[in-house]
Amino acid sequence: MSTTQFDVIIIGGGPGGYVAAIRAAQLGLKTAVVEAAQLGGICLNWGCIPTKALLRASEINHLLHDLDGFGFAADNIRFDFARVIKRSRDVSAQLSAGVSHLLKKHKVTVINGFGKLAGTQGGLRKVSVSRDGAETAALTAPHVIVATGARARVLPGLEPDGRLIWSYREAMTPTALPRSLLVIGSGAIGVEFASFYRNMGAEVTIVEVADRILPVEDAEISTFARKALEKQGMKILTGAKLGTIAKGDNSVTVDVTAGGKTQQVTVERVISAVGIVGNVENIGLEGTAIEVAGTHIKVDPYCRTGEKGVYAIGDIAAPPWLAHKASHEGVMVAEMIAGRTVHPISPLNIPGCTYCRPQVASVGLTEARAKEAGYKLRIGRFPFIGNGKAIAMGEPEGLVKTIFDAETGELLGAHMVGAEVTEMIQGYVIARTGELTEAELKETVFPHPTISETMHEAVLAAYDGALHI
Amino acid sequence: MSTTQFDVIIIGGGPGGYVAAIRAAQLGLKTAVVEAAQLGGICLNWGCIPTKALLRASEINHLLHDLDGFGFAADNIRFDFARVIKRSRDVSAQLSAGVSHLLKKHKVTVINGFGKLAGTQGGLRKVSVSRDGAETAALTAPHVIVATGARARVLPGLEPDGRLIWSYREAMTPTALPRSLLVIGSGAIGVEFASFYRNMGAEVTIVEVADRILPVEDAEISTFARKALEKQGMKILTGAKLGTIAKGDNSVTVDVTAGGKTQQVTVERVISAVGIVGNVENIGLEGTAIEVAGTHIKVDPYCRTGEKGVYAIGDIAAPPWLAHKASHEGVMVAEMIAGRTVHPISPLNIPGCTYCRPQVASVGLTEARAKEAGYKLRIGRFPFIGNGKAIAMGEPEGLVKTIFDAETGELLGAHMVGAEVTEMIQGYVIARTGELTEAELKETVFPHPTISETMHEAVLAAYDGALHI
Repeated sequence: MSTTQFDVIIIGGGPGGYVAAIRAAQLGLKTAVVEAAQLGGICLNWGCIPTKALLRASEINHLLHDLDGFGFAADNIRFDFARVIKRSRDVSAQLSAGVSHLLKKHKVTVINGFGKLAGTQGGLRKVSVSRDGAETAALTAPHVIVATGARARVLPGLEPDGRLIWSYREAMTPTALPRSLLVIGSGAIGVEFASFYRNMGAEVTIVEVADRILPVEDAEISTFARKALEKQGMKILTGAKLGTIAKGDNSVTVDVTAGGKTQQVTVERVISAVGIVGNVENIGLEGTAIEVAGTHIKVDPYCRTGEKGVYAIGDIAAPPWLAHKASHEGVMVAEMIAGRTVHPISPLNIPGCTYCRPQVASVGLTEARAKEAGYKLRIGRFPFIGNGKAIAMGEPEGLVKTIFDAETGELLGAHMVGAEVTEMIQGYVIARTGELTEAELKETVFPHPTISETMHEAVLAAYDGALHI
Repeated sequence: MSTTQFDVIIIGGGPGGYVAAIRAAQLGLKTAVVEAAQLGGICLNWGCIPTKALLRASEINHLLHDLDGFGFAADNIRFDFARVIKRSRDVSAQLSAGVSHLLKKHKVTVINGFGKLAGTQGGLRKVSVSRDGAETAALTAPHVIVATGARARVLPGLEPDGRLIWSYREAMTPTALPRSLLVIGSGAIGVEFASFYRNMGAEVTIVEVADRILPVEDAEISTFARKALEKQGMKILTGAKLGTIAKGDNSVTVDVTAGGKTQQVTVERVISAVGIVGNVENIGLEGTAIEVAGTHIKVDPYCRTGEKGVYAIGDIAAPPWLAHKASHEGVMVAEMIAGRTVHPISPLNIPGCTYCRPQVASVGLTEARAKEAGYKLRIGRFPFIGNGKAIAMGEPEGLVKTIFDAETGELLGAHMVGAEVTEMIQGYVIARTGELTEAELKETVFPHPTISETMHEAVLAAYDGALHI
């Protein structure tokens, strides 16, 4: 088999991989992407994007059952669940086709198959591509970016069975709305599914082993979100352990121990959302100097692995395992390969968002982590109830919390829960990236009337006192 | 009559005045606010806030008639117009009461009546308060802040008559939804009313004397917004002049000349939204060194007038006439009086928002003004159709435009039209206030999937090329 030579080969066509490919091609590099499944990866086809379409539907359903407060009414409010699901799939299909179009426009070679590091050839890295176990192509390049992503972690006894126990895939393509649901794990994915199904009308129970939901968020935000979700009728068990899991014909009964008591929870379906594992298998890492920690490849701040010319980005590399971190790394590595000066990303400048109702968004250190790091803190809080726009919108449930270094005025962290916060957090991210302090944030004129004024008030609250509380 | 002495007296309890009062009180100053009408001023009672409640209702009405695309349906969709209006009034009443509570909490003396500068007494500024023409109180202080605001400009022949010709007040408290409406003026106020009434089902025509709607916005954004509004069924006449205005029993017929042709437009109601005039009358400016230009008080960048110890803030002072500019000036002047070092606000760092559908938001220079100022430009554009979240939300109609100084990388201006942009613009405002360049904005990791990613792409588009287009 003849080998085709490229400037850069990217194994994996998810958000890290395809963005790296576009950037490399923009910078004049001859670029190949090897992908066995759909372009756009999990994010675009089975994660970020289709869930947002579903959550939009669930927000509409919520609003339709809350019309009276706005002076509206309607009879026989209904949804066609199959069409709700189909719209979500259509959005993914449209965007995946868009990625294909972008790669074609940028003259990136897209190769369908499994890519695997296969040593060197003529001083270049070799990548072997196979389909159904048979090699279909061989490529060489001085640079290879590994962007094979991750998949759902599977707990013993909670293997997705295509029927009663769902992973994110089944949870995203159900044929009918279950009447009751147990969500195991309260990270972003678990809470988003819980929010979708609850707002569509299902009875939802969340089980979390940690002592609070959304455990990576600031503790106050977790508490606020929990109260809001419970007010919507969700049942939430934290510090909880799973016991026997008994499957019936159309139900599952799970023993859950929490707070010293064991209870049986019987539901129609179970969603397992207990984290991810990196796709490190069968990609040719064996016998290389590439180090693997757990199921992730060890990289330096420039995404370099132990092998010269081999980089790892996105979910296969270091946390946080978020699509925007992957694509940002893709751009950085592509630019570095093209000879540009690049800057590593600080993980503390990477925001995290959960698109439940109310939304959650944050960047930087939580209060607990800032204290652990030894900072002396100034903390500001501002509730949505003090914000005119939030009240006018009928969205008075929310909180913004800012954490500053008392000595330097540096914004160490910002934490938000409430309507629109996933679109607002970027202001704080810009502030952190630009190394702005409270002085500049205080001087910033936030437009009135917007919910974003709460971001200003939360800064003032940490220092001189907020104006509207 | 005995006089009561304060550290600072504020004439006017609108957003500039009451915020100045809260800030002054926080800094330990003995503070009085004189207000003849409701606390919160026009903004809170007759402007920003109640219109947002109305616009929220009109967005809901739009969504209710667009359910099918999301897989939803409902029968007999209806609204109780009186309740829609009442909710808007209730929101204003709640917030006005909130301001009253805040002032009480901060121990600000609130005096109901018309305040007027009344010379000096014992080396202090004197303010006379009257009700129904009779003096009811006399106050002195070393510092007086004039924050008397503005009112709607009235064109001859378009005087509000409480029946057919409406100002913003009648437009905000109608007893029934008119079937057809002519909006004169396409600034933020005119376009917001046009959007509200159109989305509630009225036939709406906008007449604008300038050659485009939203004339202070970047020309491309104006064009985009116009197309979007016309697609919704609005009729828009620009470069238009009004001729004869003939009132009928329940209709008005207006001769409109545009593009060399004159047509008769017959509507049930007319809304006049042709700008504002400052409330400079009867506040004791005569015989002082305070200069008035047109109907506004001339101030220096610190809001100082020609009289020592007398300041003017908000709509009575320099443009832009926006509530957040007023309250920011209120804070600045209060801090200056309290002896703090303060920084004048650059008008180019004050964002402007229009809450029509699609929303419009901007900060800094338009392309035309940047060119006039002699800059060499780099311009970036990114459409919402290239954004996954916008597509997932069913909001693919939008555009972000960035304008950079090609020599320094300074962000000169940012212009947005589309869903959520009023909550997003603060990111660019933070960037401008912190004097960030394209380099820092490029390095910023915007969360995925959010519409705010369009802000990043519009920066990339101005330099290296956007990723998703």
